[in-house]
Amino acid sequence: MIDPVRPIPIEDVEAARERIAGTILRTPLVKLDLGPDGPDIRLKLENLQPTNAYKIRGAANAVAMLSDEDRARGVWTISAGNAGQGVAYAARAAGIPCSVVAIETAPKTKLDRMRALGATIVPVSYEEAWKAAEAHAFEGLDGTFVHPFDNHDFIAGHGTMGLEILEDAPNVRTVIAAIGGGGLITGVGSAIKALKPDVRVLGAEPETAAPYALSLRNGEPSKFTDWQASFVDGAGGQSVTARMWERMQPVVDGSITVSLEQVREAMRLMADKARVVSEGAGALALAAALTGEAGDGPIVCVVSGGNIDLAKFTSLVTA
Amino acid sequence: MIDPVRPIPIEDVEAARERIAGTILRTPLVKLDLGPDGPDIRLKLENLQPTNAYKIRGAANAVAMLSDEDRARGVWTISAGNAGQGVAYAARAAGIPCSVVAIETAPKTKLDRMRALGATIVPVSYEEAWKAAEAHAFEGLDGTFVHPFDNHDFIAGHGTMGLEILEDAPNVRTVIAAIGGGGLITGVGSAIKALKPDVRVLGAEPETAAPYALSLRNGEPSKFTDWQASFVDGAGGQSVTARMWERMQPVVDGSITVSLEQVREAMRLMADKARVVSEGAGALALAAALTGEAGDGPIVCVVSGGNIDLAKFTSLVTA
Repeated sequence: MIDPVRPIPIEDVEAARERIAGTILRTPLVKLDLGPDGPDIRLKLENLQPTNAYKIRGAANAVAMLSDEDRARGVWTISAGNAGQGVAYAARAAGIPCSVVAIETAPKTKLDRMRALGATIVPVSYEEAWKAAEAHAFEGLDGTFVHPFDNHDFIAGHGTMGLEILEDAPNVRTVIAAIGGGGLITGVGSAIKALKPDVRVLGAEPETAAPYALSLRNGEPSKFTDWQASFVDGAGGQSVTARMWERMQPVVDGSITVSLEQVREAMRLMADKARVVSEGAGALALAAALTGEAGDGPIVCVVSGGNIDLAKFTSLVTA
Repeated sequence: MIDPVRPIPIEDVEAARERIAGTILRTPLVKLDLGPDGPDIRLKLENLQPTNAYKIRGAANAVAMLSDEDRARGVWTISAGNAGQGVAYAARAAGIPCSVVAIETAPKTKLDRMRALGATIVPVSYEEAWKAAEAHAFEGLDGTFVHPFDNHDFIAGHGTMGLEILEDAPNVRTVIAAIGGGGLITGVGSAIKALKPDVRVLGAEPETAAPYALSLRNGEPSKFTDWQASFVDGAGGQSVTARMWERMQPVVDGSITVSLEQVREAMRLMADKARVVSEGAGALALAAALTGEAGDGPIVCVVSGGNIDLAKFTSLVTA
């Protein structure tokens, strides 16, 4: 029932770009001013998207590709918050029903927004959600399943970010993106590698949830047994699935693991210098760049999202 | 000695756009999601500029137009913070010296950043700064004076924002911009009125510093005697000068006065929905749009800047 994994051709990304142009924001690439001697770091501000996260790119593409028959049946997804908002937004824009199997511990901001976008919420535990994501199924839900990361059209939509990055920073040397399920980095990496194979593509994970780094060390998709919940709720999975491993390997050159304190400092730096609110996952790539492990710039950091309760954000950046 | 006031021709704005393209960010126009029944409001995010305020547009244009002889002598300006950062940034990029006559009560964020950009700071009181701005002179400072609002080339640079707004929102009905000295709204208004004279251009002022609204009521440039300092430090002057009145009148259709509480609420709303940090002046236009006095949308609100101490910001938006 599940489509076999196949590479994301650049033609699919270019077609997605046309399909989603009216729904998404072409986000700015902003230089982070770290002084004349600081590294050359640019921020791809996906937190400025409607729904405040990159997931809307893939969601808009997947929804735009539905047949008339599928549209009538509606869509559903599984989400810690950002995918659900993205799919709900795209579905509302297209006038079709949407359900979200949502992790019940997701930030209130994210759950409230899914509801405000007209989605029906089915609250479940993290474990149940992850099981449904692996099975590509959830009992009792009908309609087209838009997988929050393991879906060809969804990933092709994320790839559009890669096209924009290369237009705005043709001299980029390294692109860093957070790894959660792996859809973001597969999309961005596929576009970058197709057009400029010499640009390095690196993942970023928190040390409390770093199954991709572990999988690289093990040479095979692995489960991260020491997984801990944290304010970096939009990235960092419990494991890398075999399918996502197959997707990521050809387009990802490595990964950087950062501490929660480094993430917090990256959030504070972005608030201070770039004047934006990022969620924990959204600051992972910058935290990784600031370790120095990504080498010289220009480095583009994908700021994947900004969905965090404002009180939580202010407590983190002013601590 | 002071050049007579003359209208800003669209050709000057278009020439400025080419001159400053390598220095400024072409900022995004972001929809503020207020639900399906809410007004259609778009935010022009000038707080994302390097130096986090629109002033860099005018500064980059004025500095680019200096003769070789003038470049050697350097530039100076007068500033509550944002103009000083803009001129200092453009001067540093061009490799020329810069001094800033700075209002000593400006937020620490702003003063620190001017210094970090290599500017020599001359701290003065608000009254002394305003006097120097009216006289276009300050004893002891040499070099080319880039007036923070009453300068043709500076204003032409701000006008480039108008070109971008019309490209991104061709159906815009009203554009709202904060009034401090009046340079921002003159620049944006000149570009908008030249290309689409039916679009309304409105100013926004806090009720604690609203000399333009008073001048409109009086039918002549007036002094606002009840002026009070507030967190809206980047806009709201003590008076409208005769020269700025002459500049604004042909391109501004009216103004909206808002309370400090309305500004605070607009700051909170932008942090919550658009995930950006705005300073008080930066939220004036949105506060004005939310009063309903600007009528139906699409309304474009210029978010003029985001330079506010982070602790101050968090205390305002989480109160």
